Amino acid sequence: MCRWIAYSGPPIYPETLLLTPENSLINQSLSARYSITPTNADGCGLGWYGERPEPGVFRDVLPAWNDQNLISIARQVKTPLFFAHVRAATFGPIQRSNCHPFAFDQWMFMHNGQIGGFESIRRELEGLVLTEFYNVRMGTTDSENIFQLLLGDGLRDDPIGAFRRTVGRVEAVMKAHDITEPLRMAAAATDGESIHAVRYASDDRAPTLYIGHSTLSGQPDETGPGVMVLSEPLDFDTGDWQEIGMSRFVTACAGAFDEEDFLPSK
Amino acid sequence: MCRWIAYSGPPIYPETLLLTPENSLINQSLSARYSITPTNADGCGLGWYGERPEPGVFRDVLPAWNDQNLISIARQVKTPLFFAHVRAATFGPIQRSNCHPFAFDQWMFMHNGQIGGFESIRRELEGLVLTEFYNVRMGTTDSENIFQLLLGDGLRDDPIGAFRRTVGRVEAVMKAHDITEPLRMAAAATDGESIHAVRYASDDRAPTLYIGHSTLSGQPDETGPGVMVLSEPLDFDTGDWQEIGMSRFVTACAGAFDEEDFLPSK
Amino acid sequence: MCRWIAYSGPPIYPETLLLTPENSLINQSLSARYSITPTNADGCGLGWYGERPEPGVFRDVLPAWNDQNLISIARQVKTPLFFAHVRAATFGPIQRSNCHPFAFDQWMFMHNGQIGGFESIRRELEGLVLTEFYNVRMGTTDSENIFQLLLGDGLRDDPIGAFRRTVGRVEAVMKAHDITEPLRMAAAATDGESIHAVRYASDDRAPTLYIGHSTLSGQPDETGPGVMVLSEPLDFDTGDWQEIGMSRFVTACAGAFDEEDFLPSK
Amino acid sequence: MCRWIAYSGPPIYPETLLLTPENSLINQSLSARYSITPTNADGCGLGWYGERPEPGVFRDVLPAWNDQNLISIARQVKTPLFFAHVRAATFGPIQRSNCHPFAFDQWMFMHNGQIGGFESIRRELEGLVLTEFYNVRMGTTDSENIFQLLLGDGLRDDPIGAFRRTVGRVEAVMKAHDITEPLRMAAAATDGESIHAVRYASDDRAPTLYIGHSTLSGQPDETGPGVMVLSEPLDFDTGDWQEIGMSRFVTACAGAFDEEDFLPSK
Repeated sequence: MCRWIAYSGPPIYPETLLLTPENSLINQSLSARYSITPTNADGCGLGWYGERPEPGVFRDVLPAWNDQNLISIARQVKTPLFFAHVRAATFGPIQRSNCHPFAFDQWMFMHNGQIGGFESIRRELEGLVLTEFYNVRMGTTDSENIFQLLLGDGLRDDPIGAFRRTVGRVEAVMKAHDITEPLRMAAAATDGESIHAVRYASDDRAPTLYIGHSTLSGQPDETGPGVMVLSEPLDFDTGDWQEIGMSRFVTACAGAFDEEDFLPSK
Repeated sequence: MCRWIAYSGPPIYPETLLLTPENSLINQSLSARYSITPTNADGCGLGWYGERPEPGVFRDVLPAWNDQNLISIARQVKTPLFFAHVRAATFGPIQRSNCHPFAFDQWMFMHNGQIGGFESIRRELEGLVLTEFYNVRMGTTDSENIFQLLLGDGLRDDPIGAFRRTVGRVEAVMKAHDITEPLRMAAAATDGESIHAVRYASDDRAPTLYIGHSTLSGQPDETGPGVMVLSEPLDFDTGDWQEIGMSRFVTACAGAFDEEDFLPSK
Repeated sequence: MCRWIAYSGPPIYPETLLLTPENSLINQSLSARYSITPTNADGCGLGWYGERPEPGVFRDVLPAWNDQNLISIARQVKTPLFFAHVRAATFGPIQRSNCHPFAFDQWMFMHNGQIGGFESIRRELEGLVLTEFYNVRMGTTDSENIFQLLLGDGLRDDPIGAFRRTVGRVEAVMKAHDITEPLRMAAAATDGESIHAVRYASDDRAPTLYIGHSTLSGQPDETGPGVMVLSEPLDFDTGDWQEIGMSRFVTACAGAFDEEDFLPSK
Repeated sequence: MCRWIAYSGPPIYPETLLLTPENSLINQSLSARYSITPTNADGCGLGWYGERPEPGVFRDVLPAWNDQNLISIARQVKTPLFFAHVRAATFGPIQRSNCHPFAFDQWMFMHNGQIGGFESIRRELEGLVLTEFYNVRMGTTDSENIFQLLLGDGLRDDPIGAFRRTVGRVEAVMKAHDITEPLRMAAAATDGESIHAVRYASDDRAPTLYIGHSTLSGQPDETGPGVMVLSEPLDFDTGDWQEIGMSRFVTACAGAFDEEDFLPSK
């Protein structure tokens, strides 16, 4: 189980969310409060948009609290949309290519959760990736596989439809192999304009997901109609945070967001 | 606060202590039980003796549980004496040169604890290092500084005397600068023959230190008159572990050990 | 194009071949003499056998000349059979899982060369890997793919037959995709007893391969009936080195070696 | 001997100089043309200014051509002033803290060259660092030591005077220790406004230094009155590049630059 945060709004330094808050993402990397695996020290990543359509991506293997490069970038770049992630590995070695976010053209993806029994169905799931997205793969995680499947299932044209098709496809393979471990995911994708996020599990224990509206203390000028989608609240004044229900899909953009029900395709 | 283990006895694979036990050193790196900082994920190291007088040393910046190189070495080399260490950083960046054990000629040193207010007296303490040991320094930690001071204070000829002189010297500098934070140390040095370890603090909260006699379960043939000095027990059958008192110095060799009182030189 | 060396014989410290000679493997990493890519700085690896049937494996992403861990291990472990490798990347990011040697059970494999057009046939070649070897894959290289194919083609029972079948299979896929770039390989596999090596190309420019008999200067006692298979000679006294011809397969063991012709299966 | 480039002018993506040109800094890391050590693969760094007075700094140990993080940042951030550096180590291990540029408050420093006999006078030179700058030191290089001495010698108020005093001070220590190896430097410092650079050696072989005025091909809109100070030209149309003479000091700002003679203080 990992921790992540997605932000969209007025340009801010990512440190505003990664370093400053009481329960900042870096503090969650050392000791997450809402997670079954409190230590998320198996690498970290930050992807952010600037003037180009493609994001910049920094990913590395050190625990986030140790990575002076991550910290310096988070203090230096101002960005209207970024994804940040701290990893707790389930499958695959600790290497940059297994760290989130994953990027392709102007899209990024990150994930908290797992495909139950991935080791036994990895070959089949990788075989479902379309040829044009196959060489996107530089690592070995189930998360990167989901991103590749989403790309092939139409992520760029129909995000919620792509998530429905990909999750349905994965569940079908799991069922065909009699896998009883659940699929669980709190995932987000973005094209640099909108954040698309889902909270879902094949059992009743989907990873937590929250929406936050920022008027983060001490950052009055830099915020405004910003919106965050994230694994857990950044402070403990619960007024600012709203839990996303299970089997729900969120689209956030320009400080606002919509929610709708999410069910995988059959 | 770090965690470490020193072993001397019949040749064993270090995995016997690093990987196998219930509270193995690798498990302590993720969640130490007797420590005020439970996560020790700021690098790791293994130094071991073979046929040469000098040890082999592996040190790296990943958390121990993620380092397949560490794990492979711990499974592959058989050694009659080794030091292993997982770091929780107090001062200095995460880089190999700040990981323990430190080595010079046939000597190794590792440490759990800290020199109170080290940042404000670092310049003076580094100035006390003898020229001949000055270039041993490749990192920035208080621990490496202690090792260099020990070398200059006669570690190779009179280990307990060197510890007394070095600790006394450090405490004098701390006092001259009105530092109120304590010096605390659970440290070990070896020449490949004997393990010299000390538990000491300038207040009453010295880091824990234990002695263990091995008949580790499942390793009947490989052990025998082995002895371990270590930060905390490797399992919870308390019969095998003996706590070292504060202000005590241990010399372990050939499966046996002696204890004596330890007071810094004035 | 990478550089590698395989040694079998009386136990030696790998430094004897990696560090000491005039054209040692570490010197080849900075400036290889017989290679079209002189700098081999994209990671390094060392796999060696001890008392267990499985090898110990150290792989890392730094240039070999910078890796103090590699250097320390090469000075500390004595071994009767080892593989060492310095990488010049053709496909895939610089990560430990893309460094050689690759290991599975008691087998190791390393490679210099490339599958022409690998990016366009990667999906098909990975699809040929048997399920039982699929999760061996932790990286993205054509070299690791060849190892997995060899395992499925019977490497453990019939090494030369497995090489014939795997190379034939890869060439068939290349042909089916009208790939004109050549397949080139100088590769070695071992079970800890014998070294099996091949020099082959689908054009007439196979990577160099040499056999050496050791009475390495300055190491009179440690050598004897040892045998080396390697990318290029370690010194420039040509008397000690014998070039392996193209389309030849070498089996080396206990200081001796056999050569035979090598042709891929149709 | 390292390679570096400093840029000041209209905001550009650093890739314009690091990745795109025929003899880009990344190509120089693999094979520099004007250097006695052609391979500069011992780490890399990029420091750049944005809206804050302090620079962002990315430094890492991989060869520049392998570092996808460096490449992504160089493509994503737009900056009016940056320092970029590829290292060929002379003293000190390969670790982030030994990579350039070094930063303190809003200042940055980078260096190509060496203090002759540094190992034998390191203790004395480090002892000359003022207490307030002593903890800036996180590595072990002569370059970082020069930066700390510059800070103490008034870099922030009188850059050329500080360089004169620091170089004079270092030469005096070298002379007192009868060191015959030369001091050589091509170094640059900046406060985010002006670039101050020096080409100097105590013998007659100072590292090369060039000034370039940019109308880099293919970047017509992004450049203009920009100025580069750098180790060697980025392409081989010599019209754009002007060699800086030995014992010369350059101040570049807002697309223009001044040159003056440089002599160390006695």
